[in-house]
Amino acid sequence: MTTKIGVIGMGHVGSTVAHALIVEGVAQDYVLIDTNTAKVKADALDFEDAMANLDHFANITVNDYAALGDADIIVSALGNIDLQNNTSDDRFAEFPFTSKAAKSVAEQIKASGFNGVIVVISNPVDVITSIYQKYSGLAKAQVIGTGTLLDSARMKRAVGQRLNLNPKSVFGYNLGEHGNSQFTAWSQVRVKGQSIEQLASDLGLDLDELSHESIIGGHTVFRGKLYTNYGVASAAVALVKVVLSDAKVELPVSNYYEPLNTYLSYPAVVGRQGILEQAKLTLTDAEEEKLALSAKYIKEKFEGFQAQQN
Amino acid sequence: MTTKIGVIGMGHVGSTVAHALIVEGVAQDYVLIDTNTAKVKADALDFEDAMANLDHFANITVNDYAALGDADIIVSALGNIDLQNNTSDDRFAEFPFTSKAAKSVAEQIKASGFNGVIVVISNPVDVITSIYQKYSGLAKAQVIGTGTLLDSARMKRAVGQRLNLNPKSVFGYNLGEHGNSQFTAWSQVRVKGQSIEQLASDLGLDLDELSHESIIGGHTVFRGKLYTNYGVASAAVALVKVVLSDAKVELPVSNYYEPLNTYLSYPAVVGRQGILEQAKLTLTDAEEEKLALSAKYIKEKFEGFQAQQN
Amino acid sequence: MTTKIGVIGMGHVGSTVAHALIVEGVAQDYVLIDTNTAKVKADALDFEDAMANLDHFANITVNDYAALGDADIIVSALGNIDLQNNTSDDRFAEFPFTSKAAKSVAEQIKASGFNGVIVVISNPVDVITSIYQKYSGLAKAQVIGTGTLLDSARMKRAVGQRLNLNPKSVFGYNLGEHGNSQFTAWSQVRVKGQSIEQLASDLGLDLDELSHESIIGGHTVFRGKLYTNYGVASAAVALVKVVLSDAKVELPVSNYYEPLNTYLSYPAVVGRQGILEQAKLTLTDAEEEKLALSAKYIKEKFEGFQAQQN
Amino acid sequence: MTTKIGVIGMGHVGSTVAHALIVEGVAQDYVLIDTNTAKVKADALDFEDAMANLDHFANITVNDYAALGDADIIVSALGNIDLQNNTSDDRFAEFPFTSKAAKSVAEQIKASGFNGVIVVISNPVDVITSIYQKYSGLAKAQVIGTGTLLDSARMKRAVGQRLNLNPKSVFGYNLGEHGNSQFTAWSQVRVKGQSIEQLASDLGLDLDELSHESIIGGHTVFRGKLYTNYGVASAAVALVKVVLSDAKVELPVSNYYEPLNTYLSYPAVVGRQGILEQAKLTLTDAEEEKLALSAKYIKEKFEGFQAQQN
Repeated sequence: MTTKIGVIGMGHVGSTVAHALIVEGVAQDYVLIDTNTAKVKADALDFEDAMANLDHFANITVNDYAALGDADIIVSALGNIDLQNNTSDDRFAEFPFTSKAAKSVAEQIKASGFNGVIVVISNPVDVITSIYQKYSGLAKAQVIGTGTLLDSARMKRAVGQRLNLNPKSVFGYNLGEHGNSQFTAWSQVRVKGQSIEQLASDLGLDLDELSHESIIGGHTVFRGKLYTNYGVASAAVALVKVVLSDAKVELPVSNYYEPLNTYLSYPAVVGRQGILEQAKLTLTDAEEEKLALSAKYIKEKFEGFQAQQN
Repeated sequence: MTTKIGVIGMGHVGSTVAHALIVEGVAQDYVLIDTNTAKVKADALDFEDAMANLDHFANITVNDYAALGDADIIVSALGNIDLQNNTSDDRFAEFPFTSKAAKSVAEQIKASGFNGVIVVISNPVDVITSIYQKYSGLAKAQVIGTGTLLDSARMKRAVGQRLNLNPKSVFGYNLGEHGNSQFTAWSQVRVKGQSIEQLASDLGLDLDELSHESIIGGHTVFRGKLYTNYGVASAAVALVKVVLSDAKVELPVSNYYEPLNTYLSYPAVVGRQGILEQAKLTLTDAEEEKLALSAKYIKEKFEGFQAQQN
Repeated sequence: MTTKIGVIGMGHVGSTVAHALIVEGVAQDYVLIDTNTAKVKADALDFEDAMANLDHFANITVNDYAALGDADIIVSALGNIDLQNNTSDDRFAEFPFTSKAAKSVAEQIKASGFNGVIVVISNPVDVITSIYQKYSGLAKAQVIGTGTLLDSARMKRAVGQRLNLNPKSVFGYNLGEHGNSQFTAWSQVRVKGQSIEQLASDLGLDLDELSHESIIGGHTVFRGKLYTNYGVASAAVALVKVVLSDAKVELPVSNYYEPLNTYLSYPAVVGRQGILEQAKLTLTDAEEEKLALSAKYIKEKFEGFQAQQN
Repeated sequence: MTTKIGVIGMGHVGSTVAHALIVEGVAQDYVLIDTNTAKVKADALDFEDAMANLDHFANITVNDYAALGDADIIVSALGNIDLQNNTSDDRFAEFPFTSKAAKSVAEQIKASGFNGVIVVISNPVDVITSIYQKYSGLAKAQVIGTGTLLDSARMKRAVGQRLNLNPKSVFGYNLGEHGNSQFTAWSQVRVKGQSIEQLASDLGLDLDELSHESIIGGHTVFRGKLYTNYGVASAAVALVKVVLSDAKVELPVSNYYEPLNTYLSYPAVVGRQGILEQAKLTLTDAEEEKLALSAKYIKEKFEGFQAQQN
């Protein structure tokens, strides 16, 4: 049957995700949902005004949770980016708003009978993904956060620019929280047939600086336009395509990591059923420690949220 | 040689155009220009953060007019949409700002040695296109406004929705000013093998209502989000592709219409050199009259601008 | 749910259709079927060897009719093109072989429980489409032949080359049999805002010559490589995309034409359910006569086949 | 300026490359060249018959070497696959024919003034690439063979199928000759965050068997249809896109390897100027030995060809 994707939250990110999906013809049917009815209707009409000039056709439904019942994928891009405009650069500024919204949306998704894969972009993504999983009633494998798929892309961009290399030719990942406790697992990064640690030593590259550059990148974009959308939307769209085509690609996304009992970003093989299998990295002790700290942080935030619900 | 596209003005429309071009891999090199340096740099970095997750690679240069010298196409999306947020629904609210900016940009384009095609989206598009042509020193055929390519898409969407038909299967166009003096040339519209006038009469369709719907569409989108971007960006991207591939497609775009001595939207065949040939429509007398009125309006506005320059 | 397309017959045309669909990422799952097991397995493996270098992933199943049960679309490209290599240029040279094969395949499709849309390319396409409809047990609306979608494209190419115009900017169609009794309905063809008859008279164009060019085109291709594939595959792929996305595009395809009680090519609106509605052309008397003759020819061939089955 | 690609040799591979490029809209202008004029004209007309139904437009020129002068890329797919239909499975069966043809074509390319990148698919590819480089007079960096980009894809497919993983998530390469002396550099292959040697030992995988599977794959395809086209065409198209977009991707392609004084496949960073930089692998002693043997074989064949020219 034809492919249907729901996008919840038509702010900067959600509308950019919808735009990319429609322009590329990734699916045939879309359900766009936003609490701001005028905005989501305007976007839908604007997309319909584009159809005569686009290569692909798309059928668009607005604000109809029931229509999500037979969707393949739901992308959650809800949030309130204005709350993020503060001096702390902390993705938890949005948490009180977004956690509440996510719980409510997850319950409505559950009511629709949806049984596909939820892709969560909403921040703080690891905790919000946990909330979606809990309240949608879906299996852990079916709820995935974009997590450090974006941060890994930023790390690859930073490394690639330094080495005059395409980011896709930088192999490796950022792990843990999509937030300040994340880290680049440099022990895993390979470039031009070499470990980056070897290369960095040969070329006098400062990996801490590169790590910083990859993290600061997001803030630079945010400071420049008070939101970020293209990088994160492309990560979400890439993830959506992998799920739809059952492509079994290994991606560093937020998924439930059993050893630490929490959602966090760790490479996993992704297919139509969601998470199919986790990679098994041989990290350094320092990296394992960072991962544990990051996990602890996410877990506490989620437990704090849970506690409030009772 | 590889393809290079400049986009001037990275507001809602310009950044959406750049996003669509990059996602679809239409060109390999991009020059993004905006007076808000922080914004254009943020967009460029955001696009670079997307590269690891996109199918196509793009090289991005920021705020470098000299880099436009060997571009194939420059898209002008500059403007100040906030000026448009008034009760008049008149695209001339932006005029004082945009006309001045366009003149200055056109002169910088000229200085770069650019000899490709300029695609103008900036409103009021017919007059701004005239300004670009005059101050860039390019031939009239090389400067094209998106014009009623968007309004025609809206008309096709409105007709298509009424008749349960894809907008691409509605043949015909809106003509004249991309503004309030435009009109649908119903005498030219054909649907399902019939003239729409025949069909409307058979089905009891009210063409005036449809015309109104196609024009009001833009305002509905605008009122819902205080800007419009997807429809107009898709029109610009479609036009860009036709120029790049020398596709010789007939499109209702703003081009210089000799009989009335002004830029206005009238179907023309478009290719790598810009406008190759105009269509020759057999309009009704009423339609010819509307076209003349629309032309008069555009011409006066342009002459008004010209007068101020001396 | 994700999209599945079956392709039956992996000769020049079927494999080209599969290639285009896979390269463009039109569907996620494919079922490829051919009586030559070595060939279809070789193609499947060859496609799998392409995956590491393609933008889109595809899951491929080989020679499994049961897997067609939940497919969205089945494309029939079976045939024996070698039978076509004769001096008569008559698409009925393949008929004895292909009609028998089509009946058998249709019965197997029926047995699979398939309830989507069958797109028939196999020649003589109008009769083979009739056979598929009868033996698959599907509704007439669900079985469509590519018909003169290809011949119309050839006509548009011929007209476009003469007028320095993109074939997509030539509006109109060839009607009737995808074979020697077809004709261009010149009364319907419009170019650059004018009827082509007007234009031909103004420019001294010989429409009969153009008609001949559009028909002879297929033979020229055939004589040059002993098969044709790109033109017809692109027609089939275009039709597949329209069905999948429920795009409601008007296309000149082979569909059941009630007034003449037979499958033949006549423009119809196509969507996810197949044929949604037929256009209502106002043809000239001469054109109506040609259509009736073409219909008679197809009908007799189909009745001849039917008679043999009893 | 717009993008122009030449394809020389319109057999199974060349025409499949052209088809993929045109369907995906990779370039705007194409020059197709074949000694069989009827075939190349038939393909060109067949592509033109597809334009009305394709998303992208393409301008096609046939058998005009002068038109290659300002091309960006020339793909050589010439060869005589029938010579390959023997029991030896040796890609050198085509050598006497193809080497002569390549020399002649290279001289004509030189005469055209072409100064872009040549992508060689013609087998035996490493030697033929050497010949193209020598007789085109282009710098070594500008002449690249698809080499083991295909064999690496086959290895990735074989490994991926065994591990239920996308071939794109298998990192590593086959090295050396695109022929029987090649080998998989298992020391470099990483899967799911682990070295494959570790994984193979854990899971009881037989890497020799996998290596064999990756090499035998090509023969299986060949035996099934007497040619291979999709895998190799996708490798060539991927390489073409990287060159056009200056993407600086690391690819295992046939390029001049200074330490062993010959063309062979070894990972290198590829951009608009061709080969930008070679990777520096830390191979095992056994792998280095295999590479040297493979190099020796290629070098002798090229020197043998050279000797005949005097």
